[in-house]
Amino acid sequence: MAKIAFIGLGNMGEPMAVNLIKAGHILNIFDLVDAPLKRLEKIGASICLNAKQSVENVDFVISMLPAGKHVEGLYLGEEGLLNYISKETLVIDCSTIDVSTTKKLSFEAINKGISMLDAPVSGGVNGAIAGTLSFMVGSSKEMFTLVETLLQDMGQNIFHAGNAGSGQMAKACNNMLLGILMAGTSEALQLGIANGLDPKVLSEIMIKSSSRNWTLEVYNPCPDVLENVPSSNNYEGGFALDLMLKDMNLAMKASIESNSPTPLGAISRNLYSQYSNEGNGGKDFSNIFNLFSQN
Amino acid sequence: MAKIAFIGLGNMGEPMAVNLIKAGHILNIFDLVDAPLKRLEKIGASICLNAKQSVENVDFVISMLPAGKHVEGLYLGEEGLLNYISKETLVIDCSTIDVSTTKKLSFEAINKGISMLDAPVSGGVNGAIAGTLSFMVGSSKEMFTLVETLLQDMGQNIFHAGNAGSGQMAKACNNMLLGILMAGTSEALQLGIANGLDPKVLSEIMIKSSSRNWTLEVYNPCPDVLENVPSSNNYEGGFALDLMLKDMNLAMKASIESNSPTPLGAISRNLYSQYSNEGNGGKDFSNIFNLFSQN
Amino acid sequence: MAKIAFIGLGNMGEPMAVNLIKAGHILNIFDLVDAPLKRLEKIGASICLNAKQSVENVDFVISMLPAGKHVEGLYLGEEGLLNYISKETLVIDCSTIDVSTTKKLSFEAINKGISMLDAPVSGGVNGAIAGTLSFMVGSSKEMFTLVETLLQDMGQNIFHAGNAGSGQMAKACNNMLLGILMAGTSEALQLGIANGLDPKVLSEIMIKSSSRNWTLEVYNPCPDVLENVPSSNNYEGGFALDLMLKDMNLAMKASIESNSPTPLGAISRNLYSQYSNEGNGGKDFSNIFNLFSQN
Amino acid sequence: MAKIAFIGLGNMGEPMAVNLIKAGHILNIFDLVDAPLKRLEKIGASICLNAKQSVENVDFVISMLPAGKHVEGLYLGEEGLLNYISKETLVIDCSTIDVSTTKKLSFEAINKGISMLDAPVSGGVNGAIAGTLSFMVGSSKEMFTLVETLLQDMGQNIFHAGNAGSGQMAKACNNMLLGILMAGTSEALQLGIANGLDPKVLSEIMIKSSSRNWTLEVYNPCPDVLENVPSSNNYEGGFALDLMLKDMNLAMKASIESNSPTPLGAISRNLYSQYSNEGNGGKDFSNIFNLFSQN
Repeated sequence: MAKIAFIGLGNMGEPMAVNLIKAGHILNIFDLVDAPLKRLEKIGASICLNAKQSVENVDFVISMLPAGKHVEGLYLGEEGLLNYISKETLVIDCSTIDVSTTKKLSFEAINKGISMLDAPVSGGVNGAIAGTLSFMVGSSKEMFTLVETLLQDMGQNIFHAGNAGSGQMAKACNNMLLGILMAGTSEALQLGIANGLDPKVLSEIMIKSSSRNWTLEVYNPCPDVLENVPSSNNYEGGFALDLMLKDMNLAMKASIESNSPTPLGAISRNLYSQYSNEGNGGKDFSNIFNLFSQN
Repeated sequence: MAKIAFIGLGNMGEPMAVNLIKAGHILNIFDLVDAPLKRLEKIGASICLNAKQSVENVDFVISMLPAGKHVEGLYLGEEGLLNYISKETLVIDCSTIDVSTTKKLSFEAINKGISMLDAPVSGGVNGAIAGTLSFMVGSSKEMFTLVETLLQDMGQNIFHAGNAGSGQMAKACNNMLLGILMAGTSEALQLGIANGLDPKVLSEIMIKSSSRNWTLEVYNPCPDVLENVPSSNNYEGGFALDLMLKDMNLAMKASIESNSPTPLGAISRNLYSQYSNEGNGGKDFSNIFNLFSQN
Repeated sequence: MAKIAFIGLGNMGEPMAVNLIKAGHILNIFDLVDAPLKRLEKIGASICLNAKQSVENVDFVISMLPAGKHVEGLYLGEEGLLNYISKETLVIDCSTIDVSTTKKLSFEAINKGISMLDAPVSGGVNGAIAGTLSFMVGSSKEMFTLVETLLQDMGQNIFHAGNAGSGQMAKACNNMLLGILMAGTSEALQLGIANGLDPKVLSEIMIKSSSRNWTLEVYNPCPDVLENVPSSNNYEGGFALDLMLKDMNLAMKASIESNSPTPLGAISRNLYSQYSNEGNGGKDFSNIFNLFSQN
Repeated sequence: MAKIAFIGLGNMGEPMAVNLIKAGHILNIFDLVDAPLKRLEKIGASICLNAKQSVENVDFVISMLPAGKHVEGLYLGEEGLLNYISKETLVIDCSTIDVSTTKKLSFEAINKGISMLDAPVSGGVNGAIAGTLSFMVGSSKEMFTLVETLLQDMGQNIFHAGNAGSGQMAKACNNMLLGILMAGTSEALQLGIANGLDPKVLSEIMIKSSSRNWTLEVYNPCPDVLENVPSSNNYEGGFALDLMLKDMNLAMKASIESNSPTPLGAISRNLYSQYSNEGNGGKDFSNIFNLFSQN
């Protein structure tokens, strides 16, 4: 049982906090929005007036924010939390942000004697609710050992990706490749359809062949090939195309900063960008399938 | 037990013929090269002087040739086999060729009252020897029923892809997507490596995440992540990059002819083309991994 | 003054034939459509019952057809014109077709002792009417000398690109690059617009800088930067996107057949293909500009 | 005659400073490297001990630094120049940096009542020496009027691109498109060469046709088509491929931040990145031509 400050209680953060409370932890919570605070208070969390107050005398600080600038704003600067967090506290940033901001934060934390690790998640809102998230952790081995059990209260697969920043990097690699798989699987299925093949038959053949991949098997972008996937539900629910675009953009930044050639990632990013501009960013990212349609 | 003419006894054709003989079929064989003919004669096949002779009084004709022009040359024209094959004989072309040639052949065969189906394979030389090939068959349902048992003597998965031409099309879709998966997985792994990640750890994370795919799991392009794959054996053996390029080119032709957008297929095809020009076409196609290397 | 058989009198062929008549040549004409035949008869051309009749006793045969299959159908086969054309007649195919068909035709013609050269044009319908077309000629130097004067009656720039097939190849290279320039210029202008720049000011800067190119200077894809271009006229007139797509496809075939990497050509081809599928193929090809739009 | 602080005297900055001195201006100079300071002192410039000293009592501050972080380090922070520059002084940053840093600087300057404009240049070292640079200026119209004459002492074309940041943006657009033109022209020429065309003849045809562009006309990437260009001098001199890559990366960042699809820019950036990794980053950027070579 640990004492935890949890900052950032949006679609992902709130159910993660719920699971921590259910597991018996004591939570200080802070967010700019009232509603989730009140819901969490009802099940035992303590609302704090500001972020600074929330981090007093806690074992862990967990943050779950939308983008690098929010995380930077929270921890750095004259009023930044790194000036107020005790050296005994472990800081876990679960936000998905750019690698360079993560490394900068980790560096600043070390300078102040604070241990900070990056632990972005995958699994979406459903995974956050069910407590089946995957965590990709960037930290020393020692620190990883210290947080592994805690993260298991919110997730299923807890990966140690490497040193600080490696969690973000592993997630960027995975999601860039996921974006490629979805676009590539879509264009292969559409090529078959344009030549008279039945997408269900083609999917069955490819699943048993060398082009087998996660999108084909469990998240098929072609309507009515699989049940209970966004494509069979008018692309509602799931993982919004604009969120995939955000992740592709993070991967592209890492690619630029490390001078890595990522041509398929780049072309996929541009396909999502274009399709978002055409008004499809709010639907599940598998609706990129329709970009390749002939009608 | 059937009587079969088998034409084209190269790296793939010869072991396929061996498996048919082992299964008890009677084979007429023809090829322009002597050595495989003599080896097959020793185990019971009958060498024919020419293709025309081989197709007399057989139940099936099976052809396994390198490219569309060879198949066209064999069956069409004044001296083409379609003029000599009986209407009771079923023709099975197992060559991997372009869809438009396949459709043209099927059309000409129908005009002469002959049933011809396309049944390209995947699984490589090892699959051909082990009798574990996959066949993707384009034909009517009736014809598929008539050949399924026979094909099982050479393979494991016998798919009915759809009408004539659909076998080639399904293979083109699968192999185009395979080419995308291999290039995309390579660039994702290299992006991780350039940012300090261990490719083995990153592969393990991605295999359990949403970027899971065949190349990552069973054919990892990064040396020493998996044992017994070409990448761990200096990219020897396996499926030559130039053969992947050939298959990508077939998919690109189908894409052009059906006005299908296939941007990831197109970029992948260009990566293989460029890397082949740099002298890497003879090695396994997973050596595309090194195109993205930083040293 | 020459005696000429002119076959194929569509949007391009008819005004080319008109210019030959105006220059004093005697024309035998043939087409499957009646209207242009009747219009040309009024100004002195002789309508022929079939292609075969048209080529009797002429100095030149000029063909202007939509695609390789039409040209192949006209000249090859048992009833093909190559069986009826005299060895004294020079054959000039002005159609834009694939290089491999052109080479096949040239080869068959040589076998029959006939001289055939490829001379595709650029300049569009307006250039055909004004007699300002460019011709890209593939032939020996001697033959080029024999046709240069005649082609000047229909065009302004008569280029000798090289041996047989080189005319088609030069046109494919030019039009592939034109397709790249138009798409690239469009995305650069849209990037500027998305960041608050005035496209007119940006165009002026780039025209005087190192990104100067034909599309920016004389065919700007952004509405109201230039007058009298399709983009300022709702993308009406000009060169239809579907025709650009056809030319990109021809270049892609040549790229595949010569194992040439052409990544920018490939991506551009896919952009035009996708935009054509979205219903924009009938408008001028500069409307690809809107593919990159943010609204 | 103005009093000017000039900070950053590298390959570009030094000859620009020389031209200002020749034009009669009085210069305070600062750089971390001694040699250029001493050379400029000999022709009348005053060496300053630090940047802070150099900006006292001057009419203009001009900075010419390698990247955004250097410019940020110079002007921002507790010891940043914006704390020491008088409100009467106009600040002109001629560095080529990312748009977001430029906008941040301009915003901070305004907060302190200082006028700062971005004025990146093109034309290279030769242009800097000859005083024929192009300047792309981002500022209000009023400020542009105040600096135009001064910039003419260092350059030929002084463009007003728009408000603050627009100078950087215009340069990013131009150089992204230049990178596309160079790669696209290279692949078109190589496609022709692979099909037997003479690159000189092909270049002449394309220059007179619709694929005419700056790289083809005045900077042809194929050796021995033009004299006095890097390609005819073993790709020595000119504009290093790594500098083109830097500019492509700046354009990609702007593309990501404004959610603009730039597929051709993205693919070109990846080609330069890959070719730089293969060890070709120090040569002129037109050596990308060889990436598409068949031997």
